[in-house]
Amino acid sequence: MLETTVAAIRPADEAAMAAARELHGRLTKPAGSLGALEELSVRLAGLAGVCPPPLPEPAAVAIFAGDHGVHAQGVSPWPQEVTAQMIGNFLAGGAVVNAFARQAGASVTVVDVGVATPLPTEPAAEPAVRDPAVPRLVAASVRRGTRDLTATAALTRDEALAAVQTGIRIADELIDAGAGILLTGDMGIGNTTPAAVLIAAFTGADPLDTTGRGTGVDDPTYARKVAVVRAALARHTPDPADPLGVLAAVGGLEHAALAGLILGAAARRTPVLLDGVIAVSAALAAAAFAPEAVCAMVAGHRSAEPGATVALRHLGLDPLIDLGLRLGEGTGALLALPVVTGAVRVLHEVATFDSAGVVEK
Amino acid sequence: MLETTVAAIRPADEAAMAAARELHGRLTKPAGSLGALEELSVRLAGLAGVCPPPLPEPAAVAIFAGDHGVHAQGVSPWPQEVTAQMIGNFLAGGAVVNAFARQAGASVTVVDVGVATPLPTEPAAEPAVRDPAVPRLVAASVRRGTRDLTATAALTRDEALAAVQTGIRIADELIDAGAGILLTGDMGIGNTTPAAVLIAAFTGADPLDTTGRGTGVDDPTYARKVAVVRAALARHTPDPADPLGVLAAVGGLEHAALAGLILGAAARRTPVLLDGVIAVSAALAAAAFAPEAVCAMVAGHRSAEPGATVALRHLGLDPLIDLGLRLGEGTGALLALPVVTGAVRVLHEVATFDSAGVVEK
Repeated sequence: MLETTVAAIRPADEAAMAAARELHGRLTKPAGSLGALEELSVRLAGLAGVCPPPLPEPAAVAIFAGDHGVHAQGVSPWPQEVTAQMIGNFLAGGAVVNAFARQAGASVTVVDVGVATPLPTEPAAEPAVRDPAVPRLVAASVRRGTRDLTATAALTRDEALAAVQTGIRIADELIDAGAGILLTGDMGIGNTTPAAVLIAAFTGADPLDTTGRGTGVDDPTYARKVAVVRAALARHTPDPADPLGVLAAVGGLEHAALAGLILGAAARRTPVLLDGVIAVSAALAAAAFAPEAVCAMVAGHRSAEPGATVALRHLGLDPLIDLGLRLGEGTGALLALPVVTGAVRVLHEVATFDSAGVVEK
Repeated sequence: MLETTVAAIRPADEAAMAAARELHGRLTKPAGSLGALEELSVRLAGLAGVCPPPLPEPAAVAIFAGDHGVHAQGVSPWPQEVTAQMIGNFLAGGAVVNAFARQAGASVTVVDVGVATPLPTEPAAEPAVRDPAVPRLVAASVRRGTRDLTATAALTRDEALAAVQTGIRIADELIDAGAGILLTGDMGIGNTTPAAVLIAAFTGADPLDTTGRGTGVDDPTYARKVAVVRAALARHTPDPADPLGVLAAVGGLEHAALAGLILGAAARRTPVLLDGVIAVSAALAAAAFAPEAVCAMVAGHRSAEPGATVALRHLGLDPLIDLGLRLGEGTGALLALPVVTGAVRVLHEVATFDSAGVVEK
């Protein structure tokens, strides 16, 4: 499944991109006056292979949740149970991601790929007709949290592959159900530590530049976190040409699943709007599997986590929003969604100089 | 009317701001993890005088349109008729501002405060029940374009006052009709030139730093534009302590009306989301009339026009979006609207640690 997905990912369609650029020149606005939105709409035309590309509607957020053996090293001040408790919050509609999803009209799918502690809610039987406004829980646990990456590989290759394939499957299900754009979300106490290792592994950057304060750790915890990232790289010497091996050695289950989601979206020529540092660390893995997967990626925002900027630079992506967010869950991607939709809408709805009777300069 | 409006503008409510900060600390997210959105929601609580502040809904865009005598100096490559033609485009729903307003569910009101050439559409009689999705034209022309500010004052003080009062009146009408937030829009071929003069006049910045390429002028036109801005400042020596005098000497009718709109919103404790360089030049005038008016201002985006950054710095405002837009019309404000709404929504809808059963760190 991973192999056929990777094989299905194609480069951007140059003709559709040229058509979008040409159309922009005829719309009733000064050339280039929509700044980054113009190039974004051109990229999405290239992804879809048609101009204008379809409006990215409806939107579906997929939140992959997992726990981390490295939590035992004291890299986070939050107890591990908070991962499961926040899943309860997501399903009850009480988290920030829910508020933003309601506002954006996006569905929320929570996928347990490896939560360590019992979930407060069991997955309900699917009703015949689902209300997209009600968050859904998918049970797809590979194991109850990763192993401690400072002591051993976090996952076996088979476990990492299972998580990647879950991500691909969720992408397919959401797109089959009609989603026009996928948004990445994540939940996992301690998951900025594996993200920092992944970003260092794929970009070659120093752990000091890829490690941040996550939910807001103090100085001693931060120093410990950087040391953990450095030790993990030294122990595993992950090979960026072997993304499955990197994900297994130093990843998290949600990171692996997100890489799969991104690959699945790219294979279906559907845009995937990236949230913060967890998403972009997974995007590096996806790009290592299939470089052309970058064509499907839109960087929603620049997380306050420094590793996010390192990863975005490596991917060649400019984020749409830069407001110092560091919450995760998919919140930054949801804030950026109207910008993506607006960029595409311009190609659908704005009059040309000719049709509007406006003279050109 | 201007005097009573200015007198009605009050400082932010410190108690409501403190309540919003305290509430943020109890919501199910790490403290500070929503970055700039947290401070934005605190400011809006201070403006409303209550926590949580009302959701900024529905949104109303007011596009003030005018022409400019300085157009005769060759500061724009576009013919002056385009101002009137674009009003036709706005009313037909074909412009970018219309596409973005439809997406955001915002109404569009176009106000002719001084268009030079005949409008393609006469203002229709108001139907008993207005469809907010249909753009509306308000006829409030003060004069058919300003005088050439390189030769004489652009407006008399009475004309400038009439435009400011039109802006106040439009703010009142929109808020009376239920608007929870006002968005500034503008249309006027050549209007970045008076904006550059206004920004230089109110901030003391050099014309080289306040003058941009507007719709995209070539090098000789840009050099001419800077010289025009410099000459206007030398001729009129505008006094920033006399904002009406500044608007009369070197402003445009849409700039003056926007200053009025901002003052009107501030007096009603209603947020006003600023678009680009025209809006922020008007915001400087509003702040000169009433420094506390800044409490009502939210900077939608950072225009590619350099003067916008100079003005925002002077106002102490950080923009929400920074994507190189330089279109005007209200487009940048509309792109930022979901960020503002989202910031407030968090205070209304997100569960507390207590209520969600999530333990704290």
